[in-house]
Amino acid sequence: MAAVEDTNKLSEAYPMKAGDGPNSYANNSTFQKIAVNSSQEVVREEIAEKLDIQTFFLSSCNTFRIADLGCSTGPNTFFAVDNILETVQLKYQSQGLSSHQIPKFQVFFNDQTTNDFNMLFKSLPQNRQYYAAGVPGSFYGRIFPNASIHLFHCSFSNHWLSRVPKEIGNKESPAWNKGKIYYSSSTTEVTRAYETQHALDMERFLNARAQEIVYGGLMVLIIPCRPNGTPHSHTLANITYETLGSCLIDMARKGVVDEGKLDSFNIPVYIMSPQELEVAVERTGYFSIERMEVLPNMFPNSSLSNALLSTSHVRAVHEEHIKQHFGEEIIDELFNLYHKKVEERPSKFESGKTIVSLAVLKRNTN
Amino acid sequence: MAAVEDTNKLSEAYPMKAGDGPNSYANNSTFQKIAVNSSQEVVREEIAEKLDIQTFFLSSCNTFRIADLGCSTGPNTFFAVDNILETVQLKYQSQGLSSHQIPKFQVFFNDQTTNDFNMLFKSLPQNRQYYAAGVPGSFYGRIFPNASIHLFHCSFSNHWLSRVPKEIGNKESPAWNKGKIYYSSSTTEVTRAYETQHALDMERFLNARAQEIVYGGLMVLIIPCRPNGTPHSHTLANITYETLGSCLIDMARKGVVDEGKLDSFNIPVYIMSPQELEVAVERTGYFSIERMEVLPNMFPNSSLSNALLSTSHVRAVHEEHIKQHFGEEIIDELFNLYHKKVEERPSKFESGKTIVSLAVLKRNTN
Repeated sequence: MAAVEDTNKLSEAYPMKAGDGPNSYANNSTFQKIAVNSSQEVVREEIAEKLDIQTFFLSSCNTFRIADLGCSTGPNTFFAVDNILETVQLKYQSQGLSSHQIPKFQVFFNDQTTNDFNMLFKSLPQNRQYYAAGVPGSFYGRIFPNASIHLFHCSFSNHWLSRVPKEIGNKESPAWNKGKIYYSSSTTEVTRAYETQHALDMERFLNARAQEIVYGGLMVLIIPCRPNGTPHSHTLANITYETLGSCLIDMARKGVVDEGKLDSFNIPVYIMSPQELEVAVERTGYFSIERMEVLPNMFPNSSLSNALLSTSHVRAVHEEHIKQHFGEEIIDELFNLYHKKVEERPSKFESGKTIVSLAVLKRNTN
Repeated sequence: MAAVEDTNKLSEAYPMKAGDGPNSYANNSTFQKIAVNSSQEVVREEIAEKLDIQTFFLSSCNTFRIADLGCSTGPNTFFAVDNILETVQLKYQSQGLSSHQIPKFQVFFNDQTTNDFNMLFKSLPQNRQYYAAGVPGSFYGRIFPNASIHLFHCSFSNHWLSRVPKEIGNKESPAWNKGKIYYSSSTTEVTRAYETQHALDMERFLNARAQEIVYGGLMVLIIPCRPNGTPHSHTLANITYETLGSCLIDMARKGVVDEGKLDSFNIPVYIMSPQELEVAVERTGYFSIERMEVLPNMFPNSSLSNALLSTSHVRAVHEEHIKQHFGEEIIDELFNLYHKKVEERPSKFESGKTIVSLAVLKRNTN
């Protein structure tokens, strides 16, 4: 057997802020939590209707295997897993199976190798109804044996690219993103480079999962998206990154941030539209789209609370990545400045469009 | 389904020294490495002869699953796994199977939840031929679904008790271990309490593995033992712990260590004899002993190098545990004193008897 692909090479790693401190991802992932919560009912309906448990071959050990991809450090991953597990159990019970015939569950928590798995493992729910395992590696490559997973869940992860497109950092390329950190208000070349990277990444993601999931298995994707037809620059997530970029530009002007470092820094995120997701699924051909919808508006009302949330959220997600590039010393100033900009112009953020799409895919049986 | 047993409650956790610093377990596990090395040939022979791959049901995904129990942070666990994997592959090849018929491998690295899994994952071999997963939890409870593992490996872990026997720390009990940290030169009551704890732990270990392994699956155990008939007090590992205890007693006399803390501290290790292992396997009844032998003498010749090795080894294994109990400030003084005592009386250590036993067990098809 050839060596299993080293998934670390497939993807650069941008870990969330580890641990459980005030700026940690664990304590600053409210948006993701709201999305998980509002997705729960849909996930329950889809499992109840679409999961063909009778055709499943659960192997001699009668184990139902769930994987959460891009799980980070919890607790959102645990809520999502519990919801899935209880719904699958109910489905088996509704078939009149006795309790010892109902499968046992094994749950795989996946994230990049640099994720804080120590923290994740320590916070596993004590009364969990499953055998837990952690799987390190990029989901843009193969991370599970063939046909070994019955249900994939992946929330707030697919908007991360496997890497910043190469040409973006190349001074010789027309797609060099000088003086910017993102694509949404940059040149056509830069935007196209991001779009292409995203298409490639989605294809690798879907191809890998298609091998790993059983026929008839379900995959739930929860993805921050821009509405179909909305320009990149009018998307809330993108306005967030543009604002962060403008802070870095201000700091470069003041000499606090090195201009060369600013030129070589880019955010490896792409906000797709639901349509782009559909195209990717159809092109790879392994999955049917069973359901695709926009989750209810997940943002609280007050624009000030939004501003505060937005700062802590962006910081938890991007602090490590920014620190690696610019050094720790700029972090506090950067996020203070960011916070001020958000507070000064909340309307800018309110007008930005953003949606969270939920897609339920089913593996074809051929 | 009832909640999966919380294995954290089944066992206290005594993590090895994390990270990759000069005192880390990763850099101070030579004894364990020598044992793994000298076990490799035997493991290869046993897999070649005893693994009935034709009767194995590898499930639809054609995956062969290996688990290393008490893996710590590597690199020993990776050597052991590679040896097993290559031998199993050879066995399949020798049956004339073509390369795509040979199963893929999934390897589960297990240790206590407090183990440094982040370090373990970062040091996974880049060219590994398996899908890797980490499984946190005590192997004295259930950590895998039924019949989901084909081969267990467990090296230098079974001598760890799940906990210090309760009565040892109870002032009212005849088994109170006042002024000592170990059983081997203590009262009969203390020794008996350790023996009983060990017997219970081995039973729980074997019962749990019997459910988790497939019929016909193999389990390789590598355990530091005392030769049959050797008194506890003449065993090298025990002399080591007695010496560590005498250092703490010296420090208590000097007022550096609190006497009450000394009374409540005990090492949760029991050095069994091969005979005790046999009795435990026969009593639980799920496994046959396919092979049981003493690995070649693994200690280098020079007593000074032994002393140095012994200090760094004992420190890597016990530093965290001692630190938790006594505080960080005593650590350097304690191990300097220990080192001096070992250097002063190398003969004491040379005369101590110790062996490393290798047992290969096979799951009955009952």
